[in-house]
Amino acid sequence: MGEFELIRRYFFPIAEAGNTSAIRLGPGDDCAIQRIEPGMDLVFSVDTLVEGVHFPRQYDPEKLGWRSLAVAASDLAAMGADPVCFTLALTLPDADPDWLSAYARGLAKAARNFGLSLAGGDTTRGPLTLSLQVHGTVPKGQAIQRSGAQSGDYVCVSGTLGEAGAALDHLGSDSPGPDVQAVLARYHFPEPRLALGAALRGRATAAVDVSDGLVADLGHILEASGVAANIDTDRLPLSEHLKRLAGEAAIGLALNAGDDYELCVTLSPQVWADLPRAVRSQLTVIGKVVAGEGLTIERNGYTESLPAGGYDHFRN
Amino acid sequence: MGEFELIRRYFFPIAEAGNTSAIRLGPGDDCAIQRIEPGMDLVFSVDTLVEGVHFPRQYDPEKLGWRSLAVAASDLAAMGADPVCFTLALTLPDADPDWLSAYARGLAKAARNFGLSLAGGDTTRGPLTLSLQVHGTVPKGQAIQRSGAQSGDYVCVSGTLGEAGAALDHLGSDSPGPDVQAVLARYHFPEPRLALGAALRGRATAAVDVSDGLVADLGHILEASGVAANIDTDRLPLSEHLKRLAGEAAIGLALNAGDDYELCVTLSPQVWADLPRAVRSQLTVIGKVVAGEGLTIERNGYTESLPAGGYDHFRN
Repeated sequence: MGEFELIRRYFFPIAEAGNTSAIRLGPGDDCAIQRIEPGMDLVFSVDTLVEGVHFPRQYDPEKLGWRSLAVAASDLAAMGADPVCFTLALTLPDADPDWLSAYARGLAKAARNFGLSLAGGDTTRGPLTLSLQVHGTVPKGQAIQRSGAQSGDYVCVSGTLGEAGAALDHLGSDSPGPDVQAVLARYHFPEPRLALGAALRGRATAAVDVSDGLVADLGHILEASGVAANIDTDRLPLSEHLKRLAGEAAIGLALNAGDDYELCVTLSPQVWADLPRAVRSQLTVIGKVVAGEGLTIERNGYTESLPAGGYDHFRN
Repeated sequence: MGEFELIRRYFFPIAEAGNTSAIRLGPGDDCAIQRIEPGMDLVFSVDTLVEGVHFPRQYDPEKLGWRSLAVAASDLAAMGADPVCFTLALTLPDADPDWLSAYARGLAKAARNFGLSLAGGDTTRGPLTLSLQVHGTVPKGQAIQRSGAQSGDYVCVSGTLGEAGAALDHLGSDSPGPDVQAVLARYHFPEPRLALGAALRGRATAAVDVSDGLVADLGHILEASGVAANIDTDRLPLSEHLKRLAGEAAIGLALNAGDDYELCVTLSPQVWADLPRAVRSQLTVIGKVVAGEGLTIERNGYTESLPAGGYDHFRN
């Protein structure tokens, strides 16, 4: 079977993974065609993963299939967008049918889970690199941007933080115990908070997904919004798995490690009080937006201040 | 200056290159936002270029800037779409300011020329790889697909063919003569036929851009449309530069070499006769669509038949 046939066999079925009514023309022509309903805006983001940089060499292709789409879809969640479709630019050293079928299997699972249909792509030869662009829609003007945080807002995060970061030390584990398994699952199978993001539309004043670490990503909101924030580390949501595995280091992981793909959002106390219980139960208030610049972190009675622009560590 | 500052300085101005009214949110948030006018469909395509595969190592970054966007925009031309914006997924071994500024300079020139605004992207570390996704719009249902060719249609190509292929032998030339310079320009600075593609909307029954070679790309139309075609090589449009440089080999280059980014379209004789002169003058009739399967090529009194599925040579 030729390379084109392999691609067609393994990937074209993923064109049916999500809502297909918006896709007027899927893979196989010069371009794909998407119809956007009146009253809706198109929302889109591209993410690249490079072997040896964003995932280990010889990484399980099925896990990579899930992870590569989850990471991209998380940006739709951060805008409050409803997922529609995606493109896949796949650069591969060779057309290994086993690798392709396993990658496509993981990708298809994620695509069905997130409601994203494959609309098109490009397959080329070269060092293993994946760029996925996800497309979603929001009612006009309702996307949640980074720039809307207001002094007085609560800072909230979804789920728990730090587990994907803890997983990095255990990626080579041969027979992981239950705590290690739990944090490994967070790394291998991130779950973009698409339903939560959509539920926060019209409610959150700003949102970002936690891909580079809470401090760095909340920093993006603070810079874009021209505000400061205080965070209380006692309030950081940590899983029992993480606490048992990382002990005192758990807080550091929750603050600075990436790859969790939770949402960090700001919203007013009034909106918080009025949130439907099913939405509020997915969020934890970890601090408050205040006037000024920079991020203040309270930890064990000490206060650490990060100036504006000091949130970012070098990231690939 | 940090990497993020370099990107911001060199690339963010390209967000203003095209019509910006459609871009509701450009680079810098989790997603970009595009507004599509009522009555229009979104048309999009992604193309990847890998160093050492799709362009030579140490290739001039300014030329690469033009070329990388032109190659992607050519797919919009093939659909008859009006260009709007693009995303850039740029994987780089290091953040070299000279390289980045030169690449951005070439990209900006192309972006202004083609009317494409930079809407977003991702910059990562790794072997030099570029994935550009272009977005255009067409009135609903009017995109030119590969599948509409009808028996009796003329097969036409725009411009001249084979020059970019001839350039491959001369990429390392130290002091190229005028013929070599002319073919090198075709390789370095392809010009997507955006205005021609849009003019053929509602007129051409099928279209494809010539990226992999005329035989391979016309083959895509024939397979998608379920028809055959006859091509007369005496009619292939060849530049004087190419004929002087390649002699008898010019026909082979025009048939099989890629990278020209001309359009190959099918349309009825009636539509051909009624084409505005300014459109018709950009096209040459090279053959005819007939019932059946496969491609027949008349050359020097001999007839060569390629079966359906036999159009493709292996391409990266």
